Amino acid sequence: MSKATATKNIARKAQTDAPSVTRMLAEFAVSHPSKGWSDSVDLEAHRTFANWAGCAVGPSNHETVEYALAAIKEFSPSTQSSLLGRAEKVDMANAALINGISSHTFDFDDTHLKTIIHPAGPVASAILALGEHKRLSGRALIDALVIGIEVSCRVGNTVYPDHYDRGWHITGSTGMLGSAAACSRLLGLNADQTQMALGIAASQPVGLREQFGTMTKPLHPGAAAKVGLTSALMAKHGYTASLRALEAPRGLIQVYSDKTDWTQITENLGGSWEIALNTYKPFACGIVIHPSIDGCVQLREKLGIDATKVKKISVRVHPLVQELTGKKTPKDGLEGKFSVYHSCAVAFITGRATEHEYADEVVNRADVLALRAKVELIVDPNMYEASCDVTLETTDGQTHHVHVEHAVGSLERPMSNEQLKAKFVDQSEPILGAAKTQSGWEACMSLGQQANLDALLAAMTLK
Amino acid sequence: MSKATATKNIARKAQTDAPSVTRMLAEFAVSHPSKGWSDSVDLEAHRTFANWAGCAVGPSNHETVEYALAAIKEFSPSTQSSLLGRAEKVDMANAALINGISSHTFDFDDTHLKTIIHPAGPVASAILALGEHKRLSGRALIDALVIGIEVSCRVGNTVYPDHYDRGWHITGSTGMLGSAAACSRLLGLNADQTQMALGIAASQPVGLREQFGTMTKPLHPGAAAKVGLTSALMAKHGYTASLRALEAPRGLIQVYSDKTDWTQITENLGGSWEIALNTYKPFACGIVIHPSIDGCVQLREKLGIDATKVKKISVRVHPLVQELTGKKTPKDGLEGKFSVYHSCAVAFITGRATEHEYADEVVNRADVLALRAKVELIVDPNMYEASCDVTLETTDGQTHHVHVEHAVGSLERPMSNEQLKAKFVDQSEPILGAAKTQSGWEACMSLGQQANLDALLAAMTLK
Repeated sequence: MSKATATKNIARKAQTDAPSVTRMLAEFAVSHPSKGWSDSVDLEAHRTFANWAGCAVGPSNHETVEYALAAIKEFSPSTQSSLLGRAEKVDMANAALINGISSHTFDFDDTHLKTIIHPAGPVASAILALGEHKRLSGRALIDALVIGIEVSCRVGNTVYPDHYDRGWHITGSTGMLGSAAACSRLLGLNADQTQMALGIAASQPVGLREQFGTMTKPLHPGAAAKVGLTSALMAKHGYTASLRALEAPRGLIQVYSDKTDWTQITENLGGSWEIALNTYKPFACGIVIHPSIDGCVQLREKLGIDATKVKKISVRVHPLVQELTGKKTPKDGLEGKFSVYHSCAVAFITGRATEHEYADEVVNRADVLALRAKVELIVDPNMYEASCDVTLETTDGQTHHVHVEHAVGSLERPMSNEQLKAKFVDQSEPILGAAKTQSGWEACMSLGQQANLDALLAAMTLK
Repeated sequence: MSKATATKNIARKAQTDAPSVTRMLAEFAVSHPSKGWSDSVDLEAHRTFANWAGCAVGPSNHETVEYALAAIKEFSPSTQSSLLGRAEKVDMANAALINGISSHTFDFDDTHLKTIIHPAGPVASAILALGEHKRLSGRALIDALVIGIEVSCRVGNTVYPDHYDRGWHITGSTGMLGSAAACSRLLGLNADQTQMALGIAASQPVGLREQFGTMTKPLHPGAAAKVGLTSALMAKHGYTASLRALEAPRGLIQVYSDKTDWTQITENLGGSWEIALNTYKPFACGIVIHPSIDGCVQLREKLGIDATKVKKISVRVHPLVQELTGKKTPKDGLEGKFSVYHSCAVAFITGRATEHEYADEVVNRADVLALRAKVELIVDPNMYEASCDVTLETTDGQTHHVHVEHAVGSLERPMSNEQLKAKFVDQSEPILGAAKTQSGWEACMSLGQQANLDALLAAMTLK
């Protein structure tokens, strides 16, 4: 019997003796002390928040955000909470929705690599909306962010990969629990109430992978943020749910996953931190091309030559790179994101691969097309997925080589604060200008020291 | 290989060739003509609406509704749409939520017996909220109700029973699709937009059976109503989703059910009507006790004697009745609903089994306790689940017997309009008074003839 079959049969039998993880997570969420973790975890929380905020500002006037906001305006919402990168305010729940949508619109936010969860969106979007209206401190927000992400990612660890393989977009389908836990903490709920909030949220998982490539993909973290925030408020006012909404035979986890590794929740809860494993994308495309882009940027910096001096760029990669991103002649920006050829060419020419380098006009620019034609893919099943070899031949016959073991942005080669700031600036400046962008970065990276969110919100909105 | 295993293996293979049911349902929802069905179907739609409205008024000041509304008030919502049985208005989306919660709070609403879907809640709650704010006609609402319920129930037929067995509360997990389809029609969306609305809603299924017995159970139709309404508004403003959000290998139906009988959607769509199969509960408890209650009411009417003249009531039933409702000495109203003993006693004494007969004080009233002790259950595996035999022995030695083949409220013995009205009045009068209740009933039952919803809303709210 295969391992997969064994797992499935266990789950089919409906486990009536699963540990009380709903209760455990609720107690953890409300009782873990403020900053009850190391300085490096706290720094990672600030980096997670700053990366999320920049990613929410970047697409803040994208049509995805415009369309969602137009729908929400039909409800004539109150003006409780801000939308990053914009002038409008809406009610807390819908601010959580819109900021969550925006933060995932460019697929440029953070990644918890163990589960492929993008953890900040559902949690940060909810706590910022709630924190602004309730005038909470920056410290409270950072605490809630760490706690909320811990809850989402531990549930994710419990069900991944079966749950994801089945077709759930795990960011949204665990995110409403992180959002509920974080908002419960910010509202000062007790463990009983928080257990109810988790239960109410458990009945409202969000997200199908079938939606990838449509506006409903970024809806997932936004809707999860809104569900979690609303669930916490309902619990605050006495609304009830099952005490075992997560672990019961007909609770969320057994219903939506055949894999149910409860130890991922029960072991060392409060002693290790999933947010410490968070990573940030340096490039605005699928992670599988990142090593190739990194290699081309490294060669550009090392050689300092013009693209017209390049005769050929050969990239040796794992077969998955060709399978997922093998488009030789992408016609627009979206197709460009699925083209290792375009990505390598534009990375060598500009030294970057941000959203700007995937604009339609850049994908069709003459110099980019010329270099793209010189990019060659060598598929090698012996290459590690996260690695690549890039060999560049110049028109004068020289050959240069770089091996990328792990791309920048990976856990092994995390983005430096400077690189994260450059990414933030790149997204924020076109929307908010240089001065606000600088203040916004500083506000995000010092959030834990701020008595309120005024400076952050003044910098990161168009007020 | 068992049938269950065969079904599962087929599904696991991920069907890439499923018919385009998302498109089919969208085209059906927008293009089927107004009142494009028989008079009897149209009458059933009015009965469904009236039953739903009464069920929403009954618990309108119940703590379940109060707690949910208190949470929603934290958003300072606008005042677009009414809450049945109350004076407040909130925004459309949250009016859909609150009316949906209220309508299922007493577990007294309608049932599509093929799937155990309670179909009105998600659809009627959404269209009333939208229809009020957009000042639509009663005819438009009735049309949308029939169409929305058709969509929910056909998706339900496609996945039932596997989906339900897995642990989903099918009312909420198909309801957001019915709500989205109905609201799309009311908004005048075209088929492309409606396909998007269904897709957006498909990523937000609501409801776990684990929540039964908590306030989160009635949340399910309410949240489904809200999701569907919001999805339709997003689609109206250009928001996109997968074109095959329901049928793709990672679309909703294959993700949340191993059973995928597409013919339940594709066959005779627009030619047969699921709403014609809707049923209404005459008694405010689980359907399994209904034949026993019906038998006791019949004996009461036939004999016209006082309960003190009863020596014994013997009820012969299928074993499931004892298994699910075998509580001999219920202590409060909620336990009373799971007691065939209490239910038979109170039915004989009062001739009814509405929410009032499950009040805590009634469950503990001396005359009820006295008769309850005289009720005897005879478990008989040969009895049909929907039937029972009731034998009553009087203190003077006479014996009377009644056989109930199908209880009142079943498809075979539907509630008459008079019985439905009595149920409506029973729920509405204590909240709205006799005059409004009479007007409300008339407004519901003639909704298709009304140019706007003013009369209905004036009668059914505390304005």
